Amino acid sequence: MAGSPNPLHSWFLGPQGENGPLLRELVESALQSHFDWRRAYHPEDASPIPALRGNGAGSRYRRGLKKEFASLLGELHGSVPFFHGRYNGHMLSEQTMASQAAYFAAMLYNPNNVSSEVAPVTTRLEGDVAKQLSEMVGYDPSRCWGHLTSGGTIANFEALWIARNVLYHPVAARLATRALGIDISVELPDDTRASLSNLDLWQLLNIRPGASLDLWEKLWLAAPGPLIERTLKSYSLATLGYQDYSRQLAAEFGDELPAAAVLAAGTSHYSWAKILAALGVGSNQLRFVPVTRECRMDPDALWREIESLTRKRIPIMACVSTCGSTEEGAVDDLHTLLEIRARAEWELGVTFHIHSDACYGGYAAALTRAPDGSRHSAAQVREIIGSSDWPSDQWLDSIAALAKADSISIDPHKMGYVPYPAGAFLLKDRRGRELVATDPPYLAIASDREGEQPVIGRFIFEGSKPGASAAAVWMSHRMIPLNSDGHGRIIASTMRAARKLHAFLGAADFSPLRVLRLPEPDLTIVCFLLHHPLLTSLRALNAFNEEIYRALSPDEQMTAPYIITRTKLTAPAYDGAIEPLLSQLGDDAGLYRSDLVQGLTILRATVMNPFSDEAEPDHLLGLTDAIREVAMSLLKPAIAPDGVYSASNPIFSAKST
Amino acid sequence: MAGSPNPLHSWFLGPQGENGPLLRELVESALQSHFDWRRAYHPEDASPIPALRGNGAGSRYRRGLKKEFASLLGELHGSVPFFHGRYNGHMLSEQTMASQAAYFAAMLYNPNNVSSEVAPVTTRLEGDVAKQLSEMVGYDPSRCWGHLTSGGTIANFEALWIARNVLYHPVAARLATRALGIDISVELPDDTRASLSNLDLWQLLNIRPGASLDLWEKLWLAAPGPLIERTLKSYSLATLGYQDYSRQLAAEFGDELPAAAVLAAGTSHYSWAKILAALGVGSNQLRFVPVTRECRMDPDALWREIESLTRKRIPIMACVSTCGSTEEGAVDDLHTLLEIRARAEWELGVTFHIHSDACYGGYAAALTRAPDGSRHSAAQVREIIGSSDWPSDQWLDSIAALAKADSISIDPHKMGYVPYPAGAFLLKDRRGRELVATDPPYLAIASDREGEQPVIGRFIFEGSKPGASAAAVWMSHRMIPLNSDGHGRIIASTMRAARKLHAFLGAADFSPLRVLRLPEPDLTIVCFLLHHPLLTSLRALNAFNEEIYRALSPDEQMTAPYIITRTKLTAPAYDGAIEPLLSQLGDDAGLYRSDLVQGLTILRATVMNPFSDEAEPDHLLGLTDAIREVAMSLLKPAIAPDGVYSASNPIFSAKST
Repeated sequence: MAGSPNPLHSWFLGPQGENGPLLRELVESALQSHFDWRRAYHPEDASPIPALRGNGAGSRYRRGLKKEFASLLGELHGSVPFFHGRYNGHMLSEQTMASQAAYFAAMLYNPNNVSSEVAPVTTRLEGDVAKQLSEMVGYDPSRCWGHLTSGGTIANFEALWIARNVLYHPVAARLATRALGIDISVELPDDTRASLSNLDLWQLLNIRPGASLDLWEKLWLAAPGPLIERTLKSYSLATLGYQDYSRQLAAEFGDELPAAAVLAAGTSHYSWAKILAALGVGSNQLRFVPVTRECRMDPDALWREIESLTRKRIPIMACVSTCGSTEEGAVDDLHTLLEIRARAEWELGVTFHIHSDACYGGYAAALTRAPDGSRHSAAQVREIIGSSDWPSDQWLDSIAALAKADSISIDPHKMGYVPYPAGAFLLKDRRGRELVATDPPYLAIASDREGEQPVIGRFIFEGSKPGASAAAVWMSHRMIPLNSDGHGRIIASTMRAARKLHAFLGAADFSPLRVLRLPEPDLTIVCFLLHHPLLTSLRALNAFNEEIYRALSPDEQMTAPYIITRTKLTAPAYDGAIEPLLSQLGDDAGLYRSDLVQGLTILRATVMNPFSDEAEPDHLLGLTDAIREVAMSLLKPAIAPDGVYSASNPIFSAKST
Repeated sequence: MAGSPNPLHSWFLGPQGENGPLLRELVESALQSHFDWRRAYHPEDASPIPALRGNGAGSRYRRGLKKEFASLLGELHGSVPFFHGRYNGHMLSEQTMASQAAYFAAMLYNPNNVSSEVAPVTTRLEGDVAKQLSEMVGYDPSRCWGHLTSGGTIANFEALWIARNVLYHPVAARLATRALGIDISVELPDDTRASLSNLDLWQLLNIRPGASLDLWEKLWLAAPGPLIERTLKSYSLATLGYQDYSRQLAAEFGDELPAAAVLAAGTSHYSWAKILAALGVGSNQLRFVPVTRECRMDPDALWREIESLTRKRIPIMACVSTCGSTEEGAVDDLHTLLEIRARAEWELGVTFHIHSDACYGGYAAALTRAPDGSRHSAAQVREIIGSSDWPSDQWLDSIAALAKADSISIDPHKMGYVPYPAGAFLLKDRRGRELVATDPPYLAIASDREGEQPVIGRFIFEGSKPGASAAAVWMSHRMIPLNSDGHGRIIASTMRAARKLHAFLGAADFSPLRVLRLPEPDLTIVCFLLHHPLLTSLRALNAFNEEIYRALSPDEQMTAPYIITRTKLTAPAYDGAIEPLLSQLGDDAGLYRSDLVQGLTILRATVMNPFSDEAEPDHLLGLTDAIREVAMSLLKPAIAPDGVYSASNPIFSAKST
């Protein structure tokens, strides 16, 4: 690409602070502009601060603050160098200068995006950001809703919180209509309509999310608002809580049915169990669907699970599909999962909320958008990325299918390259937010129920939150748009780099070691492990890879030449991926299979650095070499000059339990 | 105070950016230090960014960013001037320069405080901050635990999440011991001990939080760890979820008892209903305890509520006491509430978790701490604040009682004067965190169960979170310590100012209007309303005060001379405060009493500006004048020159419904 200027070169500070002068200029202008603003507000008021004298308390404080601040700056030098191409650890890299400067600028004003009353500017920017993200994934802006959160856990929490309330809403609606002496019809999963009063509990718990919300809307037309609100509330799970709600179900329907399940692959984020436990759903209700060799949710297994749950009359609250799993960056075939739900609706009368946890991978959709907002063809995407055969149609279909997910979480603070905190929650049908709404009494409530609500706080789980975060994401999207000219370039560059690393690890001569790799990455995480014939137990194999990880981890002096991380593939959740991996070992794989309950340690490189694809020196080759060197140096004390194994190396003597 | 330098003059940027040069210097040093750090990391690596050419893509991007950034800076001028003495609206004011500079400095490194692996420096700072806050409130640092959150809602959520799991733990323990064929004794609320196997469900749900955690610890000694963990989990609410857990209770104990209640005053934050709904507890379970005329939880009413719940065999999950209510800044008499719990334990065998929601008021404890960490006497505190009779002994006792609350939430981003996001959660007995722990698979798990856990993420509800926030709070506390020399000075100054405003409103001549005030503020929020004899309905009275609020609200041009807010005191939650307020009107109060179901609109001034106590011009007098002027100008069109009421003013013609 030499000769053609690469836009990415301008978007980030750079490993040596190459673009530092620009960031400095922006920050300085933010300070000056803020000072000007302060001075322009009632300039007629006298200052409460007397002119500082050289030997007063102010001067002592200034000296003290400068000293302590310098000491903090020194301590911060012990931070992990996420910014550098040598860092391929967690999902962390550079930040865009646009976001850094905007965060700082807005922070000086300290707006609180709980309400426009305390953040007239940045709540508007947050609305813009939600719209940008919605358009990227393909949601209808006139029907959807979105907002920023402190991170992915809260966004995922809100998704399931809403899914739970939408699931149980038809039950409350049925009881409310009976109490009010009205009847109302509702759409069933097979597209027929039925009278609400004729449905049994199983049917009530198998109404599509959209139909459940249609019902909610119809109810408001069927009786005076306050009466509906009061009556609905009196039967709703949110009001009653699970204990009284369960009693209500048992009293009304005889059998309250088993607790509703949440389906997710073993690749799903660890926070889901926490979220289910917190919501009172129970972590037991999280049912792991097996994965494919690519670590994607296995669609056939999903179908079998739905069939099995249906036989047991276990309702399904939601299915969590992952777009960019935390460990492997795997992208579920969301379009196929959606087809399976449609089949379940027609064949079994069963339906549920589908949430896409795209915290990590959501920004990949930018690659598929042209600057005019239209969707690129597969050929165009491949041309942009510079390949004839990837991304695959399957990958493109799964990204396009985001538009049909009922809700999506996307973290700008991951592949959006903006500073923490910045998660985002998107809801396809904005009416769902009404089922979790609360009214903060001290913030002005807008009268317009239809329009955009200035009190974001009514519908979100958090309260006070930094408007600076909205400004940062907004400015970053303004300069680096959510299409193939903007974030699409970053995705393309890092995906190319990750696949290069995957290829290097496959091509390099590691003998007497072998590199076992997961398939080519769906996004930017490369997973692999090193094997040596003398590692004759899973414990020894894991210990060896743990040692490699430790040697390539940050320490206080940052002496590691490169930084990667590791994870554990656990059985049986990951069986679908582990088996093809081990089978590369032929008969030797048998040594490990019996012990898989302790998990298989996997090395993991997240290739997010925007310069890795074409950097000099080539950090991908450098990392490959570093892994080999570290591994060889671990072998050395174990293998005598004649090549014979020595028991003195504790790695090789690690016994399996 | 002229002549003696006021330290507060140095801590903030100042209304005209008076200390701007210092902030600029700090920010510049942060940038330089960060650039230096980048350059020192593998300086031998060539730069991936070619030297920027004047007419390349880089130069176009630079121009574009500068232009767009300038436009953002212009938009930010539409922000609300929280920093100024003329702003007395929500709980927002200046930020300390120490926190602003440190946030920016750490943000450049973008550490993620989910784990020390990605934030070696700032997770340590977060631990320090938790220790500082714990020491301020009087927790035993060797037993407690704390961390930062995105805000008060999450901190409060964690409190109730833990309280719920601690409440139900003895039930799981009882079933686990039976399954394992062991027995174990537990301490009852009357200090006697009993065998776990002999307790009925009511007794199991009335074990003190500490005794529940003793039980947890004992269990780990009674059988092998993994076995205990597995068995306990299989019976726990977190695993089973409410539906299966309720079934388990019904099957084991015949009667599962009514859903557990959460007690809070009507003054409690609106997020509590949301939290109960989300946790599956149900917002119905939030029982409002009446308030006193000072808007504090009425201790006698609490006792009556406990007695009544006990008669109905309704267990109590927690009591939420507020230290600094959001609307009025009221400080509950926590020491008395603790005494009432002790009485309930002895007389009724009933106990529960006590949480102090000190999101707003927690920093007031700094006033009671000497620089050596010891507690000031009442006389010393009064000397510091410059009064002979306040704070009252009752106030001081309630602040000292924080040390005995089972958990506390405190928001540094409120009275800590640091930028969003910065909430904090403190837990008196750190073992409670184990009942909500999750293991993120890809983050290094420390082996030391006893020591400080580097993986904060195991025990908190959020995942990724900004280390910059920890650096900001840490630096601020470093320069402005949590004692009477530091934050105590800010509290003292703003409390004095708030009481001055209260006095001004009481002393000023508003005739023909009357100012009705809530009692002197416990902290820094002054609540009042304006009354005119022609406002002959509650709707008219409310509308009149709404008009005053609107005239003193931020608009796009920031033309309001002063900014305040308003809230609604709702009946019956606030009856204890509304009645004494209205009774100042004598017989006229009857005009309003019958309509109180619509709530009483109250004007609200939060006096948080650190300079208001001694500023020139005096903004407290200015605000008093502004309120009078606004009110009089609203009267004018309604009252003809001869003083006769004219129906033409819509405020006066507002009819009660």
